[in-house]
Amino acid sequence: MLIADYKIAVIGLGYIGLPLFCMLSRLYKCVGIDTDKHRVKQLQEGEDYKCCDKRRNILWALRSSKISSDYTDAKDCNIFIVCLPTDVDKSKHPALKPLTEACKSIGAILKKGDIVIFESTVYPGATEEVCNPVLEQFSGLTLDVDYSLGYSPERINVGDKSHHIYNTPKIVAASNEPALEIVSNIYSSVIDAEIVKASSIKVAEAAKMYENVQRDVLIALANEYADYCRAEGVSINEVTRCASTKWNFSNVNPGMVGGHCIGVDPYYLLHRASLLNADIPLIQEARTINEGILQKVFERVRNEINSLNKSSKEISILLMGLSYKPNTPDIRNSKALELTKLLIGDFLDVTVFDPLVNSYQVKKHHKIDVVKSAEELRAEYDVVIRLVNHKHFAKIEITAIKCLSVEDLL
Amino acid sequence: MLIADYKIAVIGLGYIGLPLFCMLSRLYKCVGIDTDKHRVKQLQEGEDYKCCDKRRNILWALRSSKISSDYTDAKDCNIFIVCLPTDVDKSKHPALKPLTEACKSIGAILKKGDIVIFESTVYPGATEEVCNPVLEQFSGLTLDVDYSLGYSPERINVGDKSHHIYNTPKIVAASNEPALEIVSNIYSSVIDAEIVKASSIKVAEAAKMYENVQRDVLIALANEYADYCRAEGVSINEVTRCASTKWNFSNVNPGMVGGHCIGVDPYYLLHRASLLNADIPLIQEARTINEGILQKVFERVRNEINSLNKSSKEISILLMGLSYKPNTPDIRNSKALELTKLLIGDFLDVTVFDPLVNSYQVKKHHKIDVVKSAEELRAEYDVVIRLVNHKHFAKIEITAIKCLSVEDLL
Repeated sequence: MLIADYKIAVIGLGYIGLPLFCMLSRLYKCVGIDTDKHRVKQLQEGEDYKCCDKRRNILWALRSSKISSDYTDAKDCNIFIVCLPTDVDKSKHPALKPLTEACKSIGAILKKGDIVIFESTVYPGATEEVCNPVLEQFSGLTLDVDYSLGYSPERINVGDKSHHIYNTPKIVAASNEPALEIVSNIYSSVIDAEIVKASSIKVAEAAKMYENVQRDVLIALANEYADYCRAEGVSINEVTRCASTKWNFSNVNPGMVGGHCIGVDPYYLLHRASLLNADIPLIQEARTINEGILQKVFERVRNEINSLNKSSKEISILLMGLSYKPNTPDIRNSKALELTKLLIGDFLDVTVFDPLVNSYQVKKHHKIDVVKSAEELRAEYDVVIRLVNHKHFAKIEITAIKCLSVEDLL
Repeated sequence: MLIADYKIAVIGLGYIGLPLFCMLSRLYKCVGIDTDKHRVKQLQEGEDYKCCDKRRNILWALRSSKISSDYTDAKDCNIFIVCLPTDVDKSKHPALKPLTEACKSIGAILKKGDIVIFESTVYPGATEEVCNPVLEQFSGLTLDVDYSLGYSPERINVGDKSHHIYNTPKIVAASNEPALEIVSNIYSSVIDAEIVKASSIKVAEAAKMYENVQRDVLIALANEYADYCRAEGVSINEVTRCASTKWNFSNVNPGMVGGHCIGVDPYYLLHRASLLNADIPLIQEARTINEGILQKVFERVRNEINSLNKSSKEISILLMGLSYKPNTPDIRNSKALELTKLLIGDFLDVTVFDPLVNSYQVKKHHKIDVVKSAEELRAEYDVVIRLVNHKHFAKIEITAIKCLSVEDLL
């Protein structure tokens, strides 16, 4: 089959799937599948409140490709790329149900010669041990005889304007050599950066996991060192700036680790490592440190507010930013959101301002009223706290007795 | 005073001091001081068994500068730069005696207007709280009234051919603004890279410490992840290679952490943090992991050797490399040396080969006979273990039943 003859289904049209769907649609006939019917309807009109990709890219894709909530619309596809979120449950265990449910639906339409590629971050082994058995069961087909498995970890950095899917090296792996060639060719046909072939799916899974746990550990170290610098009476920001002039120093700032990657993936690894009786104390400690930051920052904020000697009923507070990191509406596992909830619990007059997040969703799921427009804000508050550094905030001036930024409280 | 009129004393002519002395001598009249009379005599003839700098650079420096073991030879100097080792004692506590002893000698010749700059890595606060009081006491002078203090952490990477003192950004700090200008001007007059001004000596100390503890933590994570990959049955080297194609992944290999920087500095910080009651569990855990690697590798080596089913008296073993890292004769805190000692304790026929190290010093201090020339080796051994990857080894071929490399045992 000629490469351009492949018909590709992208399962899950969120932060990972939508840009991939749009990119692949430039060259391939694609079907984008998302089980959220409301989202599918919006996307069909080019609307995307999550800002996963540009409106013009969605409209462009729709000229040749289709978006649907019905898997049977993808029954003619021969490549399936799964881009579903891999979250944790309340006990921080892997919640792989979205993946296995998708495998049931894909299994039902899977044919001989097809390739199912996973982009979701999982613990090493999960693609072959958890996802594949469901595919086999629901398709009645046999791996590497009838169909193939691929894995290519997503590296999309939400809110990052310089590292895109099309200019970032892409790791690819597959269950057999011919499939690896096809997977590699498909990605290299649309990506300008290097395609990095891994010798096995597990290697590719382990590489992606390593990227994210290294990040978690580096941020934990930054948080730990920030605390030390605080005790020493020096600025962690200046110390980091100086150290970053060394060629091999990793310039990482302290921070509250939220989102659906760094704050989640290490739990997948901890789960797997415990099954293997492998000890990973550093990764465990990093998690403990990063999970403890929210409470630490909350206490520091409270101390700062209390230093004004006003009653908690009277004090007016403006919180700026609710997403898990700057310049994105993404509120998944947002520590700014959690901090906001803690502060709303303690103080009466709290205004929450974020021009990017979906206020309807925040109200529905978190019972928080979000002000979206700076014009609706008062001219003056007792305390203004910048929880997230959205670029939009640079132009906004609010008078306050105390202006705080989360960075100063880490 | 014109910048070129400064006369500079460099105290300590080892891996840090000698290259600095040679570099400064291109523009300034310098006096190099080292209390090791034997080393001074050798250096005066351009000989340097430690390979801290090129012979031609030493000879070049000697055309205008002087090397001596007598501090009074530096009495006309107005800038003193201390480049002495900061080791730990057997209980892993900071051993600052070389610094305080030097401060006594400098104090005895210190004059009004002089600046004493420290390049040695110490815990934040040590320069001002430990070194300076000795300077004041032995000079009878007062800091910032009579003389000034500077701090500019060394960043020399022993054995690294691409990052030199003259092309690496240099952090500078001083006890007062005019001194900071002078310190900055002196370094910028000989270094091509950026001169990074820190707002205080403590910030510069903390930045250098951060660089080295971050490295220690990253290597500890690599070691931890290597163990995990071993349990998972995938290659840590391939996993690291794949992960390193991400823009912000720090490409760090597992390893035995030796030498006088990464394996030592974190103990300085641990000491300081405990005085301040600051908790640094991640840095502590990293140390524990990295200190445990030697025993782990030793056991794996022993298992590999024992798998040959030969008596430990008969088996012939060749160990290649003894320094703490490749392409240097530096054996300070070398884990390869420690591993060699453990293996010599367990096996009778062990040949130790390293063309770079000083065999006289190794014999004297560690009672180990080192073969320096490949021609003296036998053509065949039962086991060959490459402990350090000196470039020299690439050309050497030895027949063996088992060829091991430390990297494969991490």
